[in-house]
Amino acid sequence: MSKSSSFLSKTEIMDAAEQTLRRFGPDKTSVTDVAKLLGVSHGTLYRHFPSKAALREAVTERWLEEQIVAPLEQIVKAPADNALAQLKVYIARLIELKLHYAEQDSEMFKMYTDVTMEAAELIEVHIQRIMEQMGILIDRGIQQKRIAQSAATSSLARSLFHATSRFHHPAHAHEWRSASIEQEFEQVWQLLEQGLTASIH
Amino acid sequence: MSKSSSFLSKTEIMDAAEQTLRRFGPDKTSVTDVAKLLGVSHGTLYRHFPSKAALREAVTERWLEEQIVAPLEQIVKAPADNALAQLKVYIARLIELKLHYAEQDSEMFKMYTDVTMEAAELIEVHIQRIMEQMGILIDRGIQQKRIAQSAATSSLARSLFHATSRFHHPAHAHEWRSASIEQEFEQVWQLLEQGLTASIH
Repeated sequence: MSKSSSFLSKTEIMDAAEQTLRRFGPDKTSVTDVAKLLGVSHGTLYRHFPSKAALREAVTERWLEEQIVAPLEQIVKAPADNALAQLKVYIARLIELKLHYAEQDSEMFKMYTDVTMEAAELIEVHIQRIMEQMGILIDRGIQQKRIAQSAATSSLARSLFHATSRFHHPAHAHEWRSASIEQEFEQVWQLLEQGLTASIH
Repeated sequence: MSKSSSFLSKTEIMDAAEQTLRRFGPDKTSVTDVAKLLGVSHGTLYRHFPSKAALREAVTERWLEEQIVAPLEQIVKAPADNALAQLKVYIARLIELKLHYAEQDSEMFKMYTDVTMEAAELIEVHIQRIMEQMGILIDRGIQQKRIAQSAATSSLARSLFHATSRFHHPAHAHEWRSASIEQEFEQVWQLLEQGLTASIH
């Protein structure tokens, strides 16, 4: 699969990087391994990604967009009579996706975990995407008079995201194996739902 | 400070272990280092603590009890007209204590973080202590008709603990430096407070 570096696209590099990461794991993968797989020089790769961290972040960013944000977008786009119930489905799906990747795609999940700890900016961009999606559902819920506008939409979205961190933040992945984790989410959600609807009842 | 092993108490061993941990850090401290400081043999220590992990867990357990649970007990014991406000003070203090130790006692905090990831049972016992304290405040709030009994007290306590994990769970320590962290807690608390009082208004 050797090819002229002039035709090397960022997508091709990221594909090769993802393949290499899955094979060797995020700690052992070097830029040289990726270059080898592409049949190009180390220097060629560095022209596109100035450091191993930059490459790792680009791969993580794409992974988050394709594997987390895209499936969630389906829920946001689906018409729903009850946007509050849809908001719970959205968060439950976010949790389910994280659990799925923690178990089924552990190398990529480990890389995402490392990047979460190290690249605050990239993760903040990802969280912004999630906030926007949740914001659409919250606004819909306010219009349907199922959610009380007790604070700005963005603030409600962020609070819901933070209050459910234990169930979707990768640092908690080792707690997700607990037998009571689903029940615990149900209980947290019940309290949050009461908070979201408080002024309506 | 060499002394006969027959007089060696668990407390003395833990004191020496804590001192050694602070000096060398949790990763580099060995049982031999602790034995050296006490002037006893390696074997003598193993009679009290069968592994390095056991010693580390005992030290962490004592640290959590003395540095976290004991100061929080002061809040629980103080008489208060508004147990809901007191509950917020309690959680804010829990957050403040964790932040303080993350910054001021980083070796012990690192050990506590490691143990949190590895010794689920010990941490569950600690969380039970926190749940009991929060439960007292919740029951007081229900009696004062400031908190709605929307679920069992223990379930409400656990949900509050989980919903605020981002602000006190050691895996999130690197996020606590954010300039907006206090405001974010305020917003999460507002939503939770609305949930706690929902059926009362």
